[in-house]
Amino acid sequence: MTPLAIGFADIEDAAERLRGVAHHTPVLRSRTADERTGATLYFKAEHLQRIGAFKFRGAYNALSRFSAEQRRAGVLAFSSGNHAQAVALSARLLGMPSVIVMPQDVPAAKLAATRDYQAGSPGSEVVLYDRYREDRDAIGARIAAERGLTLIPPFDHPQVMAGQGTAALELIDEVGPLDMLLVCVGGGGLIAGCAVAARHRVPDIEVVGVEPAAGNDTQQSLARGEIVKIPVPQTIADGAQTQASGRLTFPVIQALVSRIVTVSDAQLVSTMRFMAERMKQVVEPTGCLAAAAALLGPLEGPLALRGRRVGIIVSGGNVDLASYARCLNNEA
Amino acid sequence: MTPLAIGFADIEDAAERLRGVAHHTPVLRSRTADERTGATLYFKAEHLQRIGAFKFRGAYNALSRFSAEQRRAGVLAFSSGNHAQAVALSARLLGMPSVIVMPQDVPAAKLAATRDYQAGSPGSEVVLYDRYREDRDAIGARIAAERGLTLIPPFDHPQVMAGQGTAALELIDEVGPLDMLLVCVGGGGLIAGCAVAARHRVPDIEVVGVEPAAGNDTQQSLARGEIVKIPVPQTIADGAQTQASGRLTFPVIQALVSRIVTVSDAQLVSTMRFMAERMKQVVEPTGCLAAAAALLGPLEGPLALRGRRVGIIVSGGNVDLASYARCLNNEA
Repeated sequence: MTPLAIGFADIEDAAERLRGVAHHTPVLRSRTADERTGATLYFKAEHLQRIGAFKFRGAYNALSRFSAEQRRAGVLAFSSGNHAQAVALSARLLGMPSVIVMPQDVPAAKLAATRDYQAGSPGSEVVLYDRYREDRDAIGARIAAERGLTLIPPFDHPQVMAGQGTAALELIDEVGPLDMLLVCVGGGGLIAGCAVAARHRVPDIEVVGVEPAAGNDTQQSLARGEIVKIPVPQTIADGAQTQASGRLTFPVIQALVSRIVTVSDAQLVSTMRFMAERMKQVVEPTGCLAAAAALLGPLEGPLALRGRRVGIIVSGGNVDLASYARCLNNEA
Repeated sequence: MTPLAIGFADIEDAAERLRGVAHHTPVLRSRTADERTGATLYFKAEHLQRIGAFKFRGAYNALSRFSAEQRRAGVLAFSSGNHAQAVALSARLLGMPSVIVMPQDVPAAKLAATRDYQAGSPGSEVVLYDRYREDRDAIGARIAAERGLTLIPPFDHPQVMAGQGTAALELIDEVGPLDMLLVCVGGGGLIAGCAVAARHRVPDIEVVGVEPAAGNDTQQSLARGEIVKIPVPQTIADGAQTQASGRLTFPVIQALVSRIVTVSDAQLVSTMRFMAERMKQVVEPTGCLAAAAALLGPLEGPLALRGRRVGIIVSGGNVDLASYARCLNNEA
C-alpha cells in the first residue's frame, strides 16, 4: 500500500508557515442551529479567511516553499475561482510574479478581484483563453516553459492539501475534541487535509464529506473503490463542480473519511438564507455544503447529530452580490 | 446643572449583570476598509449580539433589576423593532411575562420573531393596535394599569442607556485606547451609554454620532442647545426614525459627544454592499450608519481618520431578506 501524500507533520509545518499570515478565523455558534439539530455545532468561518476562502491556506503554504530560483520566475495557476485569488495574493506577499490562466468568459468581478490581488506584483498577469477554441493545458505549458513558472494545482498537491488541513487543526485546538467533522468536497484538497488533522487529534472522529447531489463523483468513487470521473456537474456550488477527486486526495479520503453525503441546490439556497438571517453571515453556495448537511440533511440514522459535538467547515464567502440576492429571494 | 442620568459605575454594574448572558461580540477588521480610510478601524459586531442587535444589552439590564413584585406582573414595551425582541427575550430569560404593543401593520416577520422570543414565557403576548384609529399610549396605559406591568422605554431610561454602554466598554477593553468612536444615533440610548463608557476609559476620545441625513434631529438639537422634534424621517435606517432625543439621553450627548455627522440612504446602501462583499456580514441599514460615516463620510477636515484608531459600533443585523436583497441590488 502506497503511503498517503501527507501526514500530520505536514499540517503542523503548514500551520507554522501560516502563522501571522493567514487569519486565525473565528468559530461561530448559533443557538437556533443547535436547537434544530439537537447538536452542538461549531462553524469554522473560512469565509472570513484572507481572499474570502480557505484556499489561501494551501496556496500560501505551497508557494512559501519555492526555491529562490522558482520564486524569481514565479507561479502559474489555472483557475477562475478562489484558487486564482489565493495564488495571486500569496505570490504578491512572497514577492514573486503570478500568472493566472482563466477562460475569457470569466465573470468580470472575478477577473477584477484577481487583478486586484496581483496589483503591485511586477510580472504578474491574467492570461485569458477561449475555452471553446483553445487548449488550456497547452497554453499553460507553453507559458510555464517560456518563463520557467511552477504550476500549483488547486487541490492535488501535498502542500496545498496540508495547508487546507490547518483549518480543522485550528478548529479542534480551539473548541476541543469533536464527534464529527463535516467538510465540503470538490477535488478533495480541503477534506483530505482536514481528515489528516482531525483524525490525528481525535482518532475516533467521524469525518463526513458533503457533495452537491448533482456532483457526487467522490461518493461514487468511494463506492467503486476507484476514482470515478463525471461530466461537469450542474450545481450552484461552483467550487464543487470538479469532475473527479485527485490522485493524491482520493487515497486520503478512502483511508480517513467515513462517508460522503449529498445535498441539493435547494438545500444550499435554504442554508444560505439561514446563515444570512440567523447568523448574519454571507456564505457562497459551496461554503454552505457542510452546514446544509447538518441543518437539512439526513439527521436520522447514521448521520444523526443529536447530542454530538459537530464541526462544520464554512469554506468561503465569495459570491457576487447579484447572484447572492437571487438566492436570498429564493430565485436561484 | 442637573447631573447626567448615568455614570461609569452604572455601566460597570450593567456589564456585571450581562456577563454570561449577553454575547461578548467579536471585533471585526477589514484590510480594505483600513486601506480606504488610512485608519485602523475596529468594528464592534453587535449584529452578532443576541436578538441580532445591541438592544438586548439595555433591555436585559433594566429587566434584571425588577423587584419580585414587578417580575411577577411583567414588563410592557411599545416597539415593532429590535427593542421588542430584546424585551421579549430578556423577559423570558428572567422568567417574567412580556406584553409588546405593536401596530397591526407590522411586517409579519417582526411579529413572528417577537412571538418566537416569547414562546415558553407564560402570560406573554403581542397586542396589536390600529395606528390610524387607536391611541397607542392609551392602550399601553390601560394594559399596564390592569396587569400592573412596568413600562420599559426603548432608550430614555438610565438602565437601558447603561446597558447599551457596555458595547463600547467591551470594545475598548479588548482593543485598547481609541482616538475616535463612531456610533449611530436614533433616540440616543446607545451613544449616551457608549460616550460615558468611552470617555471614562479614554478621556480625550472623540465620540461622534451618525444620523441619517433625513433624520438629523440630534444634530439640530445640539446646534440649538435644546431638544428639537422633527416629523417622522423618511430613511431606510428604520432604527433611527426617531423624532427627538430623549430627556435623559440628550444631556449626556450634549456633555460628552463631540459632533454629529449625517449620511445619506445611498451611502447606507453602498456600505451594506461593502459589508456583504468584503466583510461577509449582513448588517441592517441602521447598523451601517457609523461604518458609512467612516467609509464614505467627510474624511477631510475635522472628521479625518488618517492614522487614527477608530471604533465603529455595528448596531444590528435584523433586515428581512427581501429588503436586504433589494439593497444588494442597489434597488433600495
